[in-house]
Amino acid sequence: MNFLKTSAPALAAVAVLGACAHTPATTGTTGTISMSTLHAASPALEKYTEKTLLGDLWGRTDLIARDRSIVTLAALISRKDLGELAFHFNKALDNGVKPGELSEMLAHLAFYSGWGNATAAAGVLAPVFQARGIQASALPPATVDLLPIDQKSEDVRVASVSRNVGDSAPGLVKFTSEALFHDLWLRPGLAPRDRSLVTFSSLVATGQVAQLGYHLNRAMDNGLKQAEASEALAQLAFYAGWPNVFTAIPVVRETFAKRPA
Amino acid sequence: MNFLKTSAPALAAVAVLGACAHTPATTGTTGTISMSTLHAASPALEKYTEKTLLGDLWGRTDLIARDRSIVTLAALISRKDLGELAFHFNKALDNGVKPGELSEMLAHLAFYSGWGNATAAAGVLAPVFQARGIQASALPPATVDLLPIDQKSEDVRVASVSRNVGDSAPGLVKFTSEALFHDLWLRPGLAPRDRSLVTFSSLVATGQVAQLGYHLNRAMDNGLKQAEASEALAQLAFYAGWPNVFTAIPVVRETFAKRPA
Amino acid sequence: MNFLKTSAPALAAVAVLGACAHTPATTGTTGTISMSTLHAASPALEKYTEKTLLGDLWGRTDLIARDRSIVTLAALISRKDLGELAFHFNKALDNGVKPGELSEMLAHLAFYSGWGNATAAAGVLAPVFQARGIQASALPPATVDLLPIDQKSEDVRVASVSRNVGDSAPGLVKFTSEALFHDLWLRPGLAPRDRSLVTFSSLVATGQVAQLGYHLNRAMDNGLKQAEASEALAQLAFYAGWPNVFTAIPVVRETFAKRPA
Repeated sequence: MNFLKTSAPALAAVAVLGACAHTPATTGTTGTISMSTLHAASPALEKYTEKTLLGDLWGRTDLIARDRSIVTLAALISRKDLGELAFHFNKALDNGVKPGELSEMLAHLAFYSGWGNATAAAGVLAPVFQARGIQASALPPATVDLLPIDQKSEDVRVASVSRNVGDSAPGLVKFTSEALFHDLWLRPGLAPRDRSLVTFSSLVATGQVAQLGYHLNRAMDNGLKQAEASEALAQLAFYAGWPNVFTAIPVVRETFAKRPA
Repeated sequence: MNFLKTSAPALAAVAVLGACAHTPATTGTTGTISMSTLHAASPALEKYTEKTLLGDLWGRTDLIARDRSIVTLAALISRKDLGELAFHFNKALDNGVKPGELSEMLAHLAFYSGWGNATAAAGVLAPVFQARGIQASALPPATVDLLPIDQKSEDVRVASVSRNVGDSAPGLVKFTSEALFHDLWLRPGLAPRDRSLVTFSSLVATGQVAQLGYHLNRAMDNGLKQAEASEALAQLAFYAGWPNVFTAIPVVRETFAKRPA
Repeated sequence: MNFLKTSAPALAAVAVLGACAHTPATTGTTGTISMSTLHAASPALEKYTEKTLLGDLWGRTDLIARDRSIVTLAALISRKDLGELAFHFNKALDNGVKPGELSEMLAHLAFYSGWGNATAAAGVLAPVFQARGIQASALPPATVDLLPIDQKSEDVRVASVSRNVGDSAPGLVKFTSEALFHDLWLRPGLAPRDRSLVTFSSLVATGQVAQLGYHLNRAMDNGLKQAEASEALAQLAFYAGWPNVFTAIPVVRETFAKRPA
């Protein structure tokens, strides 16, 4: 059997990208993995991937496929799961995520998961766009007309930063205000509800419990439904591991409980 | 000196895998690193690797080499240390870990450290198995006769999930019950004590303190000795970094203290 | 447009390394990403990279460029951001970080961020040194005359370890004492203040809040100024993501507050 050249079945979440034919060790990091590779390494993992993950989880109707793709990509990019990324960018486009939304997700996750995560993801997304004939001119440009800021929500945020950060990190406060909340969050290429879904998913996927309550509340203010957030946790359990989700649960539960019904 | 083509000494933990000869930058990520590369970059790191890590640590008798390999692999897979993985899969097989146990570890860590971690590891393990002539037919098949569930322990777990998760994430509760505790944990290809050692190591290696107490207790119920868990922490300090282990210590210590002598 | 062969502008933080010309998917992981790739994937990310990150942040005078390079490298190595590493090793050398200091940083981060992080970084640093004609003989050798230990500070540390770890992990205590504090920290090739800056940056970049107070105090005892630690947080927000820094803020603020003015 040749692990490296087997192309994946159409429905599989994983497909070998050739890389150098003589460098099998690179497959794990940089190309996606074929079902036959999973079979060769772990028939149990192959079964859970086909039946539980791709069958049961993705088939659930509690969260639409488009949103599952957004949650999944936020987790993969935040965790540098580059091997699965090309497949999931294509799946997201097939599930109705727009090219411009993917483009904005990268910029958003640069701030929320680290610059290198986003630039590495750009290295995977650019060839995906190229293969589909999607030009940069079709993406939201660098400078755009911004959405109006919600001043009430912004006042709450500023008060919270002032209370928590104080004068301990003036540079941080400046960039948080100017670059994040007065620019990034107001770019219209990704709806506030979707920016919040990306942020929530990224925080859960990287075990960032301390910011979770604030951002889940913001997400629900921005239109994310409780049932959607709840099902996103099931999606994240698979892509970010069970422990990250169980660690997030107490905060999620408390946030749900404190919101008006 | 040619960093890329130098083969490692037999005892070294690290050995260059060729990759494309003209792509030095890929070595860091995808192939293992030779001692001569360590020497060229940092003679101090080379010394600590040879003397402290491979000499002192691996030579300690408080944990058998087979278990050190299991702890190390759980850490490497959970942290996506793909560069060291091929070497350590081979070392584990040499240390007496069975192919079927490695196969089950991947499926186990898909749930506990994230799906992409396990599929990336499969991309490294499949060629290792191929090179040794280990066929998928020699591994535990997708469907197996399951071990009987320990109903008393399961009742405690269900009560804990109900108390902590409640109705905040019904999809998560369903998969946790059906896929994890009524299937994965009952597969006989990896003994419960070893599944617990993998889980404990993965949690420490990824800073997941919140689940640590439950799983260390479960590990000791499954037969892991206190001295083994204790020495696993020394192993994990090297492979997952000192801070992760120091963060875990208070929970470990409290768990030890609360168990009957 | 050819994403893979475009060389980056001189000032850009990112530059394509060729890799195999026929393996675009590997670019994301192993080579650095060109500005034209960022443009093709996300014009917004390109803008924030050029203007906010490389322009505004790196241009601030609150932290000298040499220290920004140290903070950035500590974050990248601790988070396995290998794609950006070759560029930043070169930038660090251009900013006045000495080859021997980079060499010692790798050994230091093996202990503080995990062995595989450091060996992977060695795989990137060795070719950088080779390209500049920097021989291993010009780096601090494996065995050196150590700095004298500060016995007062060491007594505090030993008491703290004894109090926190007790007899729960004797192997860990042994290696912490012998390898870390009686050897690594006393190597003169990286000044204690710089070792502390590396440690502080690594802890923030990996969300290790529990050890942060101890090491920030140690850093300031070693000569790191409050304004430098503060500005390092702005640098880390970009390279390790906003959430890690906001999670660190309460500990940083409390530590600042408790120190004599």
